[in-house]
Amino acid sequence: MDAAEFRRRGREMVDYVADYLENIEERPVSSDVEPGYLRSLIPTEAPLEPDNYDDIIKDVERVIMPGITHWNSPYFYAYFPASNSYPAMLADMLCGGLGCIGFTWAASPACTELETVMLDWLGKMLKLPDHFIAGTHGRGGGVIQGTASEATLMALLAARCKTLRRIRAANSELSEGEIRSKLVAYTSEQAHSSVERASLIGDVTMRMVPTDSTYAVRGSMLKKMLEEDKAAGLIPFYFCATLGTTASCAFDNITELGPICNKEHVWMHIDAAYAGSAFICPEFRPLLNGIEFADSFNFNPHKWLLVNFDCSTMWVKKREDIIGAFNVDPLYLKHENQERFRSLKMWFVFRSYGIQGLQAYIRKQVALAKEFESLVRADKRFEICAEVVMGLVCFRLKGSNDLNQLLLKRITNSREIHLVPCQLSGVFVLRFAICARSTDSRHIQHAWRHITQLSCELLQENH
Amino acid sequence: MDAAEFRRRGREMVDYVADYLENIEERPVSSDVEPGYLRSLIPTEAPLEPDNYDDIIKDVERVIMPGITHWNSPYFYAYFPASNSYPAMLADMLCGGLGCIGFTWAASPACTELETVMLDWLGKMLKLPDHFIAGTHGRGGGVIQGTASEATLMALLAARCKTLRRIRAANSELSEGEIRSKLVAYTSEQAHSSVERASLIGDVTMRMVPTDSTYAVRGSMLKKMLEEDKAAGLIPFYFCATLGTTASCAFDNITELGPICNKEHVWMHIDAAYAGSAFICPEFRPLLNGIEFADSFNFNPHKWLLVNFDCSTMWVKKREDIIGAFNVDPLYLKHENQERFRSLKMWFVFRSYGIQGLQAYIRKQVALAKEFESLVRADKRFEICAEVVMGLVCFRLKGSNDLNQLLLKRITNSREIHLVPCQLSGVFVLRFAICARSTDSRHIQHAWRHITQLSCELLQENH
Repeated sequence: MDAAEFRRRGREMVDYVADYLENIEERPVSSDVEPGYLRSLIPTEAPLEPDNYDDIIKDVERVIMPGITHWNSPYFYAYFPASNSYPAMLADMLCGGLGCIGFTWAASPACTELETVMLDWLGKMLKLPDHFIAGTHGRGGGVIQGTASEATLMALLAARCKTLRRIRAANSELSEGEIRSKLVAYTSEQAHSSVERASLIGDVTMRMVPTDSTYAVRGSMLKKMLEEDKAAGLIPFYFCATLGTTASCAFDNITELGPICNKEHVWMHIDAAYAGSAFICPEFRPLLNGIEFADSFNFNPHKWLLVNFDCSTMWVKKREDIIGAFNVDPLYLKHENQERFRSLKMWFVFRSYGIQGLQAYIRKQVALAKEFESLVRADKRFEICAEVVMGLVCFRLKGSNDLNQLLLKRITNSREIHLVPCQLSGVFVLRFAICARSTDSRHIQHAWRHITQLSCELLQENH
Repeated sequence: MDAAEFRRRGREMVDYVADYLENIEERPVSSDVEPGYLRSLIPTEAPLEPDNYDDIIKDVERVIMPGITHWNSPYFYAYFPASNSYPAMLADMLCGGLGCIGFTWAASPACTELETVMLDWLGKMLKLPDHFIAGTHGRGGGVIQGTASEATLMALLAARCKTLRRIRAANSELSEGEIRSKLVAYTSEQAHSSVERASLIGDVTMRMVPTDSTYAVRGSMLKKMLEEDKAAGLIPFYFCATLGTTASCAFDNITELGPICNKEHVWMHIDAAYAGSAFICPEFRPLLNGIEFADSFNFNPHKWLLVNFDCSTMWVKKREDIIGAFNVDPLYLKHENQERFRSLKMWFVFRSYGIQGLQAYIRKQVALAKEFESLVRADKRFEICAEVVMGLVCFRLKGSNDLNQLLLKRITNSREIHLVPCQLSGVFVLRFAICARSTDSRHIQHAWRHITQLSCELLQENH
């Protein structure tokens, strides 16, 4: 394919994508294929000679679309949102065309520099403390990671390295092996599974901290565990707090937790993967109070700030903690796969929407969640299972877990809307997350009508 | 920005990218900006209200382009290639439009399934042993990673986990801490720094194996180290072989190394990041002989197989080794950031070029390297420093390191072509890697004229 054909095919693809997004409501939101469906639809080997491009494009509808869960459909309420915006897509096209790899400053200066400045822009939008902003006299700064899981892992590894050095400096008789066998990391029992996985990769013990009735970790709970563990001769070194848990969007109390961590030399990492984007709105910013105690902080603009995947932003208080842990060229604070020009997406999105446009987008989605919450609360057969703070509503039919499992099964099979469940205190709960950029009040009303209709049928059958 | 504006702006962007690539020779291949250049060119904060899109696009030339190293310029001979092709870019546009996140099978079945089948297609193109192909009765299969570094790390962690279990099962009196303090990993002294970094993350000792006069690890060298270490009570558990080293494209002798690793229960991972793509050509496939002994294998189609970044393909012999190590849902053999629909790029590229088209591309680039090698060999002032097997030529002026450093400095400052150096046996060497898809014989001839002219000047000054 030469440049002339790319011009033609590129235009067609732009139109295909625009058509797809404009007409996405006409597609069933979820797929009904069986595992293994795709293998039989395409050859078992690559073609020796080129296929015709028209055949490739026809196969997108024939082979791919039947197996797609449409994350951008306004009938998609599962997981958390995956950002998708036109300016971000345009920036990604440019990124692909440039095809530069920014693994050192010299390998493409613009790549490293725009990333640093965009992290400053975003940090200022969130009113992060100055020590997280690179363009100040502080010692911190931000980088783009692929996912929150990577950020959690990198913070844990940096904390492990820093603690090993500190303890060895004070106790030269201890071997590194002895110290590391005593290290203990902590996180909420409500934290994402990737936090526990970070401890498996880093090969350190991780203890799960119980939460209060709102599914939040409180200072007293962590303090008790730290004291028990220190009394047993162990060395607490890392706590991963969550702002906006996956199950119910609960917020650990970081104003209580931060001073405890600081006093005990425990690295506090804050994972705000979903909720972090909302902190650009002054009315949500108080939930980030306590950030001044954190050693590192991360959230995913690729979830809820209109920057297409992947773009997970991480700030550290002291750059040297990360650089020291990885023994790499100090020119880059980043790990090997921070290589594409991902900051272009942030630049295009922040400028195309402006801060006010981004705030309006967050507020609209929260208002839709509140609208859904009101519908649930007005129906005595249902209950709300966790406080609705942002765009997630946890709800269920009053009654057994089996009843709710059956309701979810019917919702899934209908393929009109798509939800996933969670467990809260052993109770089976339905999660209704506002996801697509195009979701509107009429979709919420439709979803609720659909849920109540299926519920009516179910309750009648059960009587 | 609505769909109608996206259609218009998308077309403009397609043309911008096509213009950029068609006229890339007119731009100086490397940048002359100073560190920090970008911050002063843009505001210190994001705009409150939307910027005009035309201003954003104008800023691409004003702010970004001066800081770009043009990896797709035919005057770029640094590092290794970064793949860039029109079909891959079209697939990435589709990927962005779909915006689905395939972190489980159900989250987008097509995403998981196309990836598995594309890894089978590619595995068959490389004539990998059947046990690496998922669509057989074997126990292995392939996944896409972001980079070779991730694959190296994942293999090391899986090997660590497997070895801990094996040793504990046989020696219940040993604690996990005691075992892990005895673990030793190995790699070539010529291996990429990311291999050593994997051992830092996994917190295990790594020993560097010396190489022979061709910069290859031989069986006898590894065997000697394994025996010394076992005699000292240590537990060898992981060896990362390199096929195509970064410095000189050397090939470890895996037919010698494989049986040793297998006998000693040492996990053999093969990193063929750059060279792996060439194994689709029958004439290069013998360099992969010995793959049958490997536990895992990885290379980067995003380097040399026309699939844009990121797409690093990894195969494992036994899926359960990886799944066991990460304690994750067995539905996915992949790590958290394997989430975008990256296999679309492979599908579009393999079909648009066909196997023969891809082979022709590899052969053309190797022929260009041979052409450059001939030019160097014909000039008695220069020497070739390592066998030219693929698209990389290591060469230097006969004489001191200082002389060659000075030559490289002048080449860099001229900004006509772009190279990076390496060290081989303490000698400063210039690396000339065939990188861009558009590089042709005339560019090679031009590059050589330029190098010899600068060399003449330099040698005259030195007399």
